[in-house]
Amino acid sequence: MEWIDLRSDTVTKPTKPMLEAMWQAPVGDDVFGEDPTVNKLEETAANMFGMEAGIFCPSGTMTNQIAIKMHTQPGDEVICDELSHVYQYEGGGIAFNSGASVRLLQGNRGRVTVAQVAEGINNRDDIHKAVSSLVVLENTSNRGGGSCYELAEIEAIKNLCKTNGLILHLDGARLFNALVEKQQQAADFGRLFDSISICLSKGLGTPVGSLLLGTKEKIKKARRIRKAFGGGMRQAGIIAAAGLYALEHHVNRLATDHIHAKLIEAALLSNPKVETVLPVETNIVIFKIKDDVNPEQLVLQLKEKGILCFTMGKQQIRFVLHLDVSEAMVQRTVELLQKI
Amino acid sequence: MEWIDLRSDTVTKPTKPMLEAMWQAPVGDDVFGEDPTVNKLEETAANMFGMEAGIFCPSGTMTNQIAIKMHTQPGDEVICDELSHVYQYEGGGIAFNSGASVRLLQGNRGRVTVAQVAEGINNRDDIHKAVSSLVVLENTSNRGGGSCYELAEIEAIKNLCKTNGLILHLDGARLFNALVEKQQQAADFGRLFDSISICLSKGLGTPVGSLLLGTKEKIKKARRIRKAFGGGMRQAGIIAAAGLYALEHHVNRLATDHIHAKLIEAALLSNPKVETVLPVETNIVIFKIKDDVNPEQLVLQLKEKGILCFTMGKQQIRFVLHLDVSEAMVQRTVELLQKI
Amino acid sequence: MEWIDLRSDTVTKPTKPMLEAMWQAPVGDDVFGEDPTVNKLEETAANMFGMEAGIFCPSGTMTNQIAIKMHTQPGDEVICDELSHVYQYEGGGIAFNSGASVRLLQGNRGRVTVAQVAEGINNRDDIHKAVSSLVVLENTSNRGGGSCYELAEIEAIKNLCKTNGLILHLDGARLFNALVEKQQQAADFGRLFDSISICLSKGLGTPVGSLLLGTKEKIKKARRIRKAFGGGMRQAGIIAAAGLYALEHHVNRLATDHIHAKLIEAALLSNPKVETVLPVETNIVIFKIKDDVNPEQLVLQLKEKGILCFTMGKQQIRFVLHLDVSEAMVQRTVELLQKI
Amino acid sequence: MEWIDLRSDTVTKPTKPMLEAMWQAPVGDDVFGEDPTVNKLEETAANMFGMEAGIFCPSGTMTNQIAIKMHTQPGDEVICDELSHVYQYEGGGIAFNSGASVRLLQGNRGRVTVAQVAEGINNRDDIHKAVSSLVVLENTSNRGGGSCYELAEIEAIKNLCKTNGLILHLDGARLFNALVEKQQQAADFGRLFDSISICLSKGLGTPVGSLLLGTKEKIKKARRIRKAFGGGMRQAGIIAAAGLYALEHHVNRLATDHIHAKLIEAALLSNPKVETVLPVETNIVIFKIKDDVNPEQLVLQLKEKGILCFTMGKQQIRFVLHLDVSEAMVQRTVELLQKI
Repeated sequence: MEWIDLRSDTVTKPTKPMLEAMWQAPVGDDVFGEDPTVNKLEETAANMFGMEAGIFCPSGTMTNQIAIKMHTQPGDEVICDELSHVYQYEGGGIAFNSGASVRLLQGNRGRVTVAQVAEGINNRDDIHKAVSSLVVLENTSNRGGGSCYELAEIEAIKNLCKTNGLILHLDGARLFNALVEKQQQAADFGRLFDSISICLSKGLGTPVGSLLLGTKEKIKKARRIRKAFGGGMRQAGIIAAAGLYALEHHVNRLATDHIHAKLIEAALLSNPKVETVLPVETNIVIFKIKDDVNPEQLVLQLKEKGILCFTMGKQQIRFVLHLDVSEAMVQRTVELLQKI
Repeated sequence: MEWIDLRSDTVTKPTKPMLEAMWQAPVGDDVFGEDPTVNKLEETAANMFGMEAGIFCPSGTMTNQIAIKMHTQPGDEVICDELSHVYQYEGGGIAFNSGASVRLLQGNRGRVTVAQVAEGINNRDDIHKAVSSLVVLENTSNRGGGSCYELAEIEAIKNLCKTNGLILHLDGARLFNALVEKQQQAADFGRLFDSISICLSKGLGTPVGSLLLGTKEKIKKARRIRKAFGGGMRQAGIIAAAGLYALEHHVNRLATDHIHAKLIEAALLSNPKVETVLPVETNIVIFKIKDDVNPEQLVLQLKEKGILCFTMGKQQIRFVLHLDVSEAMVQRTVELLQKI
Repeated sequence: MEWIDLRSDTVTKPTKPMLEAMWQAPVGDDVFGEDPTVNKLEETAANMFGMEAGIFCPSGTMTNQIAIKMHTQPGDEVICDELSHVYQYEGGGIAFNSGASVRLLQGNRGRVTVAQVAEGINNRDDIHKAVSSLVVLENTSNRGGGSCYELAEIEAIKNLCKTNGLILHLDGARLFNALVEKQQQAADFGRLFDSISICLSKGLGTPVGSLLLGTKEKIKKARRIRKAFGGGMRQAGIIAAAGLYALEHHVNRLATDHIHAKLIEAALLSNPKVETVLPVETNIVIFKIKDDVNPEQLVLQLKEKGILCFTMGKQQIRFVLHLDVSEAMVQRTVELLQKI
Repeated sequence: MEWIDLRSDTVTKPTKPMLEAMWQAPVGDDVFGEDPTVNKLEETAANMFGMEAGIFCPSGTMTNQIAIKMHTQPGDEVICDELSHVYQYEGGGIAFNSGASVRLLQGNRGRVTVAQVAEGINNRDDIHKAVSSLVVLENTSNRGGGSCYELAEIEAIKNLCKTNGLILHLDGARLFNALVEKQQQAADFGRLFDSISICLSKGLGTPVGSLLLGTKEKIKKARRIRKAFGGGMRQAGIIAAAGLYALEHHVNRLATDHIHAKLIEAALLSNPKVETVLPVETNIVIFKIKDDVNPEQLVLQLKEKGILCFTMGKQQIRFVLHLDVSEAMVQRTVELLQKI
């Protein structure tokens, strides 16, 4: 039996043409800045967002952690939604790596409003308080079930940040899902954020790699931090080549994952044991089952039928659609969900 | 006009007999462990709580920050109420000094339940998560308006901590107010907590100084951290003498502050412009005024009448009773509050 | 013209058979522990050294920085030679990542003696001092010109560490050069060190990757730190496959690099403009030129002739031999060095 | 028997007139900036050095650690002599509190030259290296035996710092000894350094307290750091009063300690068991005894005769002169040292 792996979009394996691109990539020593493929990937991504520079890193967590480190000093405070990946899933890195505090906002499915951010800013003259210095948004929001921001809200938050001397970072691990779904422009995001993390190994399907984008000066600082974290790699072009391939070939196809997610949503809504489904916006489906169903047992039952997924606490289960989930697999999943 | 300073119980000035005690204290170099008055104060306080050892520090913030540092490693997570002094008013010190994350609980007036703490503990095997290692309670709770814990709740939290390998620290800046009010025993607190901070310069009225209590081994580690923070003082006996005096003469009189607080509460409740008053438990009165009253203007108006106090956001104002607020002053305040 | 790149052994590019191994490797999501190739590489390397477990990381700097972090607490002190890579070339990471101080020893070509280490240990009862907790050796020493330790010296240092409760870490970025040259056993190193970093992208010629080896418990802790640094990679098997290939095929051939280094040493010794050559022990040649020669100009002159290399300060120049420097290239270099 | 305590100038006890000044000092809550005596002390000291502002702290270690924290970011490097108090005796605080690396210079009795500092500055473009950002001088040097800088050397170092964008901090724990001895002007130091720590509890004889001086902006930042370390004290005027008294009455008398130190130096030079004496410059005497004398036994022998002192490693012993060592005590010491 072939597994239908809905645990995460990080599980995708490189396709044959992607492997071929990796095989043929010219490489060099990236610590000396001499890997032509890495250089090309960094330029390509920066240009796509209209930003000055980019830096290739081994993971999305590293791009976020470098961004937080380069934008803050110990004693600063990071404002973000309480469901944020940077707070929830990066090993306590905000404090661990940067000595920064958090101000957690109670947003809507991981999205915060400009009013919430405004209320979260500390009075700078009060020495009892950490210094508000950085706002981190996540788009799409993972724990929010793939929810997307409206550009107008981000624009308002950006203006608030400017007025208050705050920096604005985007955790765009799944930003391409939002761009494709909302038909938004990469350049608008490049214009609104001081730095953006994008991940190549989630929906885009590469084996390894993320990029942090920003000004030349900031990315220079990022190189120093990447070095100290141990994220500098040598002939990294071999994996960067997969990223270049993905940016060219795997962005538009994300729309297919979104269609698949909606098919699954519909199937769930027709099942009486399902309490609620977070309205699907992109490639993530989070649903709540009735109290009389045990979520861990349901996950085991699905596994027996060849479907892998995770629980998310409080009777919730998550499915993530991606490159390695074909139309046929979605069809099989839908059929199963209707009758289980 | 003599000011009635209700801003905080930290504003008290040393009394004549306290100054006399300071004047006569034998002193030595405490960095060499040779100040007899400091040594006596540390022993006296430790004995009072049935704990092994104590260390004298320049502030309550330092005793808390040392405790957090000595109980955690970077990457650990501290569980505490969202109103906690350690999170709200210590300059982001949890992250700044210890590189530790926070898990903020939504308690009742700064007090958390054992169920809330249980839910806040991270799964230790999940490397995405910070490691839950320390629970901090605050008793009485400052932002909670002087609210007190029941011993049974603390006992339950202690058991949960034991089972899960967590450490339990008490921010007891105003612990003596709770002991006096609830007629609880210091030894019970000494038994339940791994470490306790007590402050001598709040209700107890000394000019400077706090103590951290714990096991001999932990306090030895605390001495090292105090040194690195720069909290080691030389002939500190001169201020420790005030602490010894206060422990002997100023604990029981806290009951008077509580009576005063209740008189003020009654006055507020009779004023139609007052929306609600947090039921007074000890020496702090927090009340909310009607939406048509401007809190900053009210504070100015009170100042003109000789009363100093702070706003606390969201239409709230705080009064704190202490040694330097006499019965006559309370009477004057009550009269004013009834008619303002 | 084909470059003869003697700047570093990090510049090697993957060979065809290595690329083929990468192409064919089964992969999975390593953050979930499911990449069979990464798992195999970690087991293979651990077994080779008789150690319990290993963890695959994007760089040698990360393996060292994780080791230092997992073995220390802020306020601890790391004892190492003043030429150590961990102190000199990891972006100040000892302090940056771990808040640890350094005690720098003046060894012989990067190698320290047991007597020097003994003198470097702080008195643990003195709170003025950082706490000595970790000794880091580097073998071979990069800045020491590829110098190797005798096993007996390491054994003595290990015993000293045991007696004093210190941990012993090996930066073995070029350990295989030492093993091959001195005909030492990997298992002896596994027995003597609490943790070992080995690098796959230096002499061994893979594009990316290093391993940290240690006990199961420590490596579990390392996984948490790697996550927070952002070193967790997804389908990392694709690069780990190169490491497996290198461990099988590229270890013994290091002897060739050593022969090449000695040929170059001989050529330098015959050139009157060369002041001294650090006696060659493995694959690194460091030499000093006479005061009337400008080192930067010499590097440029060599570049014109097709040879790339770095200056090292104080009239010194470094050549590093590796997989991509063939016998013919060495011959050409030797001829040039004799007459330049 | 009355002890002659030559262990340190930190052991002095407050004199009667100093205690009287403390007793009469007006006080307030310094965390609210309302202690008139603290405010006056901060202004007085800042004016004395022609600097904009000052902040009162519980110890000299805290003033240094705040300075290092406020002038650096994690990943920066502090350049200082290897004997510096900030490196040797502050609990590893440079790394512990600031995450900063050290570049240790081998100066002459704790004093470094401009050439040494120049060589210690890292190339800013090399991401392998920590970023040189701060130079710390110590004057007089404790471990250097009270040695003093010439103003011209400091001036040269200041110019080097300016050219290279480095900040210059002075650990002036014993600066007044230098000013008195070399007849230098406080204002010259205020002009040359970005920040200065001065200690009131060493030669100046107060029980507790140090000051950090700098620009208004930096001292504002310092208040925030002091808060997070827990160095904010309440009615601190009671100890600040001793500092005001000392600045007025105890500075010029340091000359007497220097005369006493020279008398002891002469006595030591006449004793055949003494190998060498570091030429006395101010109030510290460090001497080396012949190899056949056991330093620990000598210290015990002196203790039996009523003299307290410390060994300093390598056959060395240190005497420190201060306010509590009278002419008669010096006479007794001299007599004893001649015959012992």
